[in-house]
Amino acid sequence: MDVTSIKNPKFLKKMSVAQMNGLAEDIRSFLIHKLSKTGGHLAPNLGVVELTLALHRVFNSPKDKLIWDVGHQSYVHKILTGRGDNFDTLRQYKGLSGFPKRNESKHDVWETGHSSTSLSAALGMAVARDLKKEHFDVIAIIGDGALTGGMALEALNDIGHQKRDLIIVLNDNEMSIAPNVGALHNMLNRMRSAQKYNRAKEDIEYLMKKIPAFGGKLASVAERVKDRLKYMLVSGVFFEELGITYLGPVDGHNISALIDNLNFAKKRKGPVLIHVLTQKGKGYKPAEMDAVGTWHGPGPYKIESGAFIKPVTSAPSYSKVVNDTLQDLARTDDRIVVITPAMVVGSKLEGFAKEFPDRLFDVGIAEQHAATFAAGLATQNMKPVLSIYSTFMQRAYDQIIHDICRQNLNVFIAVDRAGLVGADGETHQGVFDVGFLRCLPNIVIMMGKDENELRNMVYTAIKYDDGPIAVRYPRGNGLGVSVDEKPSEIPIGKWELLKGGSDICILSFGPLLQVALESAKKLQSEGIQVSVVNARFLKPLDSEMLNKLIARRLPILTLEESALAGGFGSSVMEFYHDHGCNDVAIKCMGIPDRFIEHGSVRELLEELGLTSDHVCTLAKQMLKDRKADGSGRQRVSS
Amino acid sequence: MDVTSIKNPKFLKKMSVAQMNGLAEDIRSFLIHKLSKTGGHLAPNLGVVELTLALHRVFNSPKDKLIWDVGHQSYVHKILTGRGDNFDTLRQYKGLSGFPKRNESKHDVWETGHSSTSLSAALGMAVARDLKKEHFDVIAIIGDGALTGGMALEALNDIGHQKRDLIIVLNDNEMSIAPNVGALHNMLNRMRSAQKYNRAKEDIEYLMKKIPAFGGKLASVAERVKDRLKYMLVSGVFFEELGITYLGPVDGHNISALIDNLNFAKKRKGPVLIHVLTQKGKGYKPAEMDAVGTWHGPGPYKIESGAFIKPVTSAPSYSKVVNDTLQDLARTDDRIVVITPAMVVGSKLEGFAKEFPDRLFDVGIAEQHAATFAAGLATQNMKPVLSIYSTFMQRAYDQIIHDICRQNLNVFIAVDRAGLVGADGETHQGVFDVGFLRCLPNIVIMMGKDENELRNMVYTAIKYDDGPIAVRYPRGNGLGVSVDEKPSEIPIGKWELLKGGSDICILSFGPLLQVALESAKKLQSEGIQVSVVNARFLKPLDSEMLNKLIARRLPILTLEESALAGGFGSSVMEFYHDHGCNDVAIKCMGIPDRFIEHGSVRELLEELGLTSDHVCTLAKQMLKDRKADGSGRQRVSS
Repeated sequence: MDVTSIKNPKFLKKMSVAQMNGLAEDIRSFLIHKLSKTGGHLAPNLGVVELTLALHRVFNSPKDKLIWDVGHQSYVHKILTGRGDNFDTLRQYKGLSGFPKRNESKHDVWETGHSSTSLSAALGMAVARDLKKEHFDVIAIIGDGALTGGMALEALNDIGHQKRDLIIVLNDNEMSIAPNVGALHNMLNRMRSAQKYNRAKEDIEYLMKKIPAFGGKLASVAERVKDRLKYMLVSGVFFEELGITYLGPVDGHNISALIDNLNFAKKRKGPVLIHVLTQKGKGYKPAEMDAVGTWHGPGPYKIESGAFIKPVTSAPSYSKVVNDTLQDLARTDDRIVVITPAMVVGSKLEGFAKEFPDRLFDVGIAEQHAATFAAGLATQNMKPVLSIYSTFMQRAYDQIIHDICRQNLNVFIAVDRAGLVGADGETHQGVFDVGFLRCLPNIVIMMGKDENELRNMVYTAIKYDDGPIAVRYPRGNGLGVSVDEKPSEIPIGKWELLKGGSDICILSFGPLLQVALESAKKLQSEGIQVSVVNARFLKPLDSEMLNKLIARRLPILTLEESALAGGFGSSVMEFYHDHGCNDVAIKCMGIPDRFIEHGSVRELLEELGLTSDHVCTLAKQMLKDRKADGSGRQRVSS
Repeated sequence: MDVTSIKNPKFLKKMSVAQMNGLAEDIRSFLIHKLSKTGGHLAPNLGVVELTLALHRVFNSPKDKLIWDVGHQSYVHKILTGRGDNFDTLRQYKGLSGFPKRNESKHDVWETGHSSTSLSAALGMAVARDLKKEHFDVIAIIGDGALTGGMALEALNDIGHQKRDLIIVLNDNEMSIAPNVGALHNMLNRMRSAQKYNRAKEDIEYLMKKIPAFGGKLASVAERVKDRLKYMLVSGVFFEELGITYLGPVDGHNISALIDNLNFAKKRKGPVLIHVLTQKGKGYKPAEMDAVGTWHGPGPYKIESGAFIKPVTSAPSYSKVVNDTLQDLARTDDRIVVITPAMVVGSKLEGFAKEFPDRLFDVGIAEQHAATFAAGLATQNMKPVLSIYSTFMQRAYDQIIHDICRQNLNVFIAVDRAGLVGADGETHQGVFDVGFLRCLPNIVIMMGKDENELRNMVYTAIKYDDGPIAVRYPRGNGLGVSVDEKPSEIPIGKWELLKGGSDICILSFGPLLQVALESAKKLQSEGIQVSVVNARFLKPLDSEMLNKLIARRLPILTLEESALAGGFGSSVMEFYHDHGCNDVAIKCMGIPDRFIEHGSVRELLEELGLTSDHVCTLAKQMLKDRKADGSGRQRVSS
């Protein structure tokens, strides 16, 4: 069938399983074709086609609440809820989001992007339902990877305690974004090979009748034996131990079995977990082969060959530069170890992982543990590198404050995906970390202007031994500048004057320095002389250079790809006022006080006015005000 | 013995168990006497006397690493490591910290204050040891309450996976700071009543021999039966399932048993958990009776009667005002529910809990889950109140960003312990939240000048339905002002002019407004007219009033009990520059860029210069500079 004609999921109720299987194939084909053009989370969605069909068959969305953990596997749900005709715009500027969005559909009852939030949200909805004496089902669909996140475990604990009616679908694809790690994973592996054990109650009675010796010595031995036996076989004991009924494992591509189990769960009182086994990338051979790597969230590709249609660039990604530099340095520095919360592939750490398997710790989706684990390593004079996306670092904020900064430990935080990230949108933009890190004592924060400076910063951070140090770097590729064979140290807190000019000064850092330089060039052609400073240390600021700037009374324009409230520009104002300078115009450009949706970084910068045209306009306005005022002060409308 | 004469724990190696029991009594007596004068975490420390003795007997600190989770139970450890003679200064300004501190002793290898960090830190130390091929033991001592924290569960998962030699002492006192909640707690309860099951391996063989029928139908039934049987009895299956050897339960007041089990754990390969049962408050009757409430961390008391020697104050605590107001409002507003991460007692929510047991959710030490659980409730049009200490809110930062603010949900965050907290010190100061919250879109942040305004703010927050709203309030008691019977709404974003004056303007909020008013009075006596503004909304700012102030060109002095970097003062500068005002002096007083140790709030404010004397000095300097400059601008040394 033409899946773009689907308006809502009601039609599923009347379909036979055979028809649903046919629809599953149509949806797969649709996804493979559409995503070959737009890119997107192909493998995760191919894995949940049957599961999503079964969910919408058994439950009545939006009355019943379907909560997609992480959310990048919600494409099939989007198709079934009437958004198939919008897939050409997937993850594009002003187009369909790659995650559930409440303003897209009433069927999206909870927005995600970060993992492990679904269980807490589901419990909240279940409690609200019970307090209001309403009647509907709440279903959280969570992957085995997301289950290792601390907040999911906190929620499981509370769910087991509260005993509300609530269904957890554990979508176990043996691999989340990265091959899953940790003991929980091993446990799920054991479950996979086990039988169902729903007949347990009857079995107990049967056993009691058949073994008269079940009493006295033998009974007590039998009782004590139970736990070791468990390790020979296995079951959902972990969840049952927490008070949650366990069903499964169920074949996640068998619609009939899924419907049966979901119906059973729907009738059962209290919290139920259905363990569903799915295959990521199911139905598209290239994706089946490498679902966790390139096919987790590919760009456009050729369907027949599975070859990627990549934009041509010779520059390495910033992430790769960090990996390569760390790999180089680790050869002669035994102290270096790398910790990543499930982002070996995302942060391009494969090289380090391969060369130093004993010194790369993928702790799974567990940002809090990752940070404090790094802190523990640092107490023993190791040099831990906590590699973490800016947006996921939010999860480890207390650990960075309480364990790393407060103890002033030598942890090197490699902040990947700092700034705008593009297609992943709102939930993933790395725009808050400048503000939330710079207010913390003891930390050094830097960001390089290009891949060569990034390499030098990694080197600098490794050499630094006076406390925590963070190096931010953007998503995507470098500028293509040549990279020094041997990296060199950058003096802590020293900025770089890229261009001298006597009319106005632009302070910026990271990729936006290119915009600053471009602006300076444009302004120069109009006779305006612009200083451009690479403010590569966001903390500490370069007080020497700032004092010189204060002395010169140049109007200051700051330009940053992060939130304006409390951001880098604010820190410059703080410095000026703290040093008694109250007669210089300071204007800050950056991310305004709202969440920024998806789109290409270029489109978003344009929308936000972070372009050379806007810089030039503002600079000229500042100079005009200065002139009008005649005293180095701006006019003010009062 | 005189416990103040102890220099280090080596002497324990030669002691008999009887002698150690005698020492335990001496230490108890010492703690009861010393804390009767200073106050401190009495009950937790009385509970771990024997455990701490056994740990220092079996292990060699500091070579072996003892890591105290939370850390408020480290007093006995402090005595045994030579700090007994300093207990008169406990938790006092420049005195002994109430938590482990690395600069106090080489035996304090890890600093804590927040819970659930010890397992991650221990794993870090164990990994460092193994990579460096060193040999020592790493022992984390963690309470049953702290175990529900997500990061502890993340760490358990990784510990089970990595299989390093590492010992976890689970100090199970049936109650952490608050009566423990959740499924984990129930599981531990079951364990408490169970037998050891270390003989399991032999038992399996025995059983196999005795039951010939163990094969065919009966065997498979027996296999499947194991899990239900488990619920009839119990064991450490949860931990074993994660790959961690479980020992116990062990009587935590039986030194001999503790030594045996610790020695056994020391020899065993891989991670081991020893489940130790202790009684909080052990040995002091009043504390035994109510270890979780008043005796968790009491102030000074009379030893004989157990009566508290409280400073006389008629004013209610701010926490109590919040509880009472919520309790009032909840009677007519069914939407109100309260969520607390284990702080029913700390945040004085007993009244609400008692009157509305179905609408108060104590989720245990699980800040992340608490925040997103609240968000889930908000999606269903409930009015969840997330009651949380400022410092613990750091744990829920991503959930506040990603789940609450980004979805613009009506969650009311009641930020308890905002500002300096006093004796708990560094780890507990609530000084970062202004900065890390105000950079988030959609949120409203306010703080009242006294208990009556706080009550009105709680009312305002309940009425507000346009997104997240945070009300900050300090630790301790209100000013003693009279409280309106019926609370009234405060217009969002409207500040209050407390005092008019034409020379300079002080902007402040919360308790420091008293300092501002006092300063204004002093300055007035010297002929300087001061405006004082109650900047009760930290976000949004009162743009109308700020525009008026800009028009008047008054020098601005901001005064806040929070970090200066990115704080309230910065937001005022941002407003001024954004509105093109570059000719007004703005000076900010607040918390400088370092962590603030323990002491009374009064002492700390003095140390930080947040007093009326310092305000007067700075105000006069600003006016002098202004005069010297002659143009409303300050002189600047260039």
